Amino acid sequence: MMIKNILGTNDYIEFLRGKSVTFMLALSNTKTADIKDITQAGIPGKIYLTPTLDSEFLTCGKVRSLENIAQTPKGVPTPALITRATHLLKPFSNIELLNLGLEVLPKVDYFKIHDFNLAPSEDISLNANIDTMDVFKRGLDFGQEYECKDDYIILAESVPSGTTTAAATALALGYECKEFFSSSFKNVPDDIRNKTIEKALENIDERDDIFTRLSKVSDNMLIFIAGFILGLNNQTKFILAGGTQMACALLIVNSILKQMQGHLETSNLALCTTKWVYEDEKSDIKALLELNDLKINAYYADFDFSLSEHPALKLYDEGEAKEGVGAGTALTYALLNGISKEELTKKIESLLG
Amino acid sequence: MMIKNILGTNDYIEFLRGKSVTFMLALSNTKTADIKDITQAGIPGKIYLTPTLDSEFLTCGKVRSLENIAQTPKGVPTPALITRATHLLKPFSNIELLNLGLEVLPKVDYFKIHDFNLAPSEDISLNANIDTMDVFKRGLDFGQEYECKDDYIILAESVPSGTTTAAATALALGYECKEFFSSSFKNVPDDIRNKTIEKALENIDERDDIFTRLSKVSDNMLIFIAGFILGLNNQTKFILAGGTQMACALLIVNSILKQMQGHLETSNLALCTTKWVYEDEKSDIKALLELNDLKINAYYADFDFSLSEHPALKLYDEGEAKEGVGAGTALTYALLNGISKEELTKKIESLLG
Repeated sequence: MMIKNILGTNDYIEFLRGKSVTFMLALSNTKTADIKDITQAGIPGKIYLTPTLDSEFLTCGKVRSLENIAQTPKGVPTPALITRATHLLKPFSNIELLNLGLEVLPKVDYFKIHDFNLAPSEDISLNANIDTMDVFKRGLDFGQEYECKDDYIILAESVPSGTTTAAATALALGYECKEFFSSSFKNVPDDIRNKTIEKALENIDERDDIFTRLSKVSDNMLIFIAGFILGLNNQTKFILAGGTQMACALLIVNSILKQMQGHLETSNLALCTTKWVYEDEKSDIKALLELNDLKINAYYADFDFSLSEHPALKLYDEGEAKEGVGAGTALTYALLNGISKEELTKKIESLLG
Repeated sequence: MMIKNILGTNDYIEFLRGKSVTFMLALSNTKTADIKDITQAGIPGKIYLTPTLDSEFLTCGKVRSLENIAQTPKGVPTPALITRATHLLKPFSNIELLNLGLEVLPKVDYFKIHDFNLAPSEDISLNANIDTMDVFKRGLDFGQEYECKDDYIILAESVPSGTTTAAATALALGYECKEFFSSSFKNVPDDIRNKTIEKALENIDERDDIFTRLSKVSDNMLIFIAGFILGLNNQTKFILAGGTQMACALLIVNSILKQMQGHLETSNLALCTTKWVYEDEKSDIKALLELNDLKINAYYADFDFSLSEHPALKLYDEGEAKEGVGAGTALTYALLNGISKEELTKKIESLLG
């Protein structure tokens, strides 16, 4: 079996074999990513372009807002390659983009871009200054109103520096999880990340309510998705396509529900990520999910680049990049639909030129 | 990238990855095809059977109205092979046939045959004598009333001698395009085709309006499709699956719109053909499309038989056959949906027995 359980049984994911999917990509910028060396998810000085380029490449196979596809300084190509390769081998029925505060709009036609009229959020080390209620409400409304034409939804993200804001968010909400968060670095730049997170947490006043805390240290994507999950209310099968960031969105949902003494059915909700996240020694996706009172099925795609000789791809196996643009769920989707590890490897290699 | 742009960007075609399609095959006979040696799209003396046989083979994998599948005298098999191979590897959701004046009805059950009560049109060198308004109106009504159950429509054709009637049509409408039309010959029999076209144009009186001109020199398929395009009115994604004939149908639409001072949105309209048409030195599909005031996206499938050793298929690469039965769009559809050039080549070879 190429799809492995993190939590729960495999029935949920087995049910999705052969089903049609709408793939949503949530795109957002936080100015936290402008802090020097805090993330390698993109080109230094142009990190803010990463979600724009990822969405162009995923939908149309080309980056249009820059000459070359986003690579980290060490040459790790964006996980959008993995998701695009999947889409080429076994197309998603539908791709939709969510603009949750982009600096630069992707240059694509025909593909639906849901625009929520949000600006990029500020640097959390200062104060992210997010209108949490507004962002949350937009997610909630979207979830309540969205009519899925397919059997399920995959929700992925591209938010540079998103693991930092996610860690700050979970900590600000009081979860004991400092060591459970991954970043896209192999040698986690603890100094910069930790300093940023610490500075962010210093802005929290212990009397701050949940929404005020989120306003200071979170990002639009996390807050929106928490609203989206609550708005969907288990009516549609919904896979959170990511690692620790998606786990954090679930913790936000958990905190809100607890405060409101609310309840949410989660039988149709799952999280699915990569092996690189699951096996990461610097983070613990399982522990993060277990902090949650909500029980959800969680999986990872048992895929690596052991069949490839390409040096840029081997960096994934060395932990230089782990997840993003729904790579783990895309791999799962491909494997669920009869695509082999060999085919995936070849197709991903072919995209590197 | 195996799908290349002729005009426009690749967003339209990328959007169709993973989408479901209704494949329509427009079938018609014009007695122009009875002129000796004017076309090699079929068996000499039985050219009129080609659309009937093509539709039987596409839908059911067998020719029923004759012993063998239509081959040209040099042994080039019908492009229906390519479309059928695609359908076997990645089935169209739905195939429907349009009877636009067949000599012989295809012997198929279950598949929808839309019958428009049209007779084959006459030889254009004499006078095609088409009731243009009637044919056009049937296309228009069909477009207005048709409810597509899939995400998009591919409209293909099988009309022997159709490139000759298309060239005559575009010239009769005043377009400067004598050199832009392909035929299914490598050594274009200019004498016969040109004489036929010249004789057809001699029947045109300069005071003739558009519909009268079409009546004299066109064919049912071209006129019907022009009506169909206007009737659909951009409400459904619609790919004209062919080369110069489909470009001519668009020129008819253009002329009608100009005369009526009408406007048509074309964002959902595209044309898609083969590499053999695109690279044909005796015709110019791009120039033909650029004669049109309507802007549409146009593509070709970057597929040839370089992976095959089969002599009958190598004739395609040598320019002996180029398009028909939607071969170019079928290849595009296959490539869009994860089928490789290798798989396509093998499947097409297997159909040759």
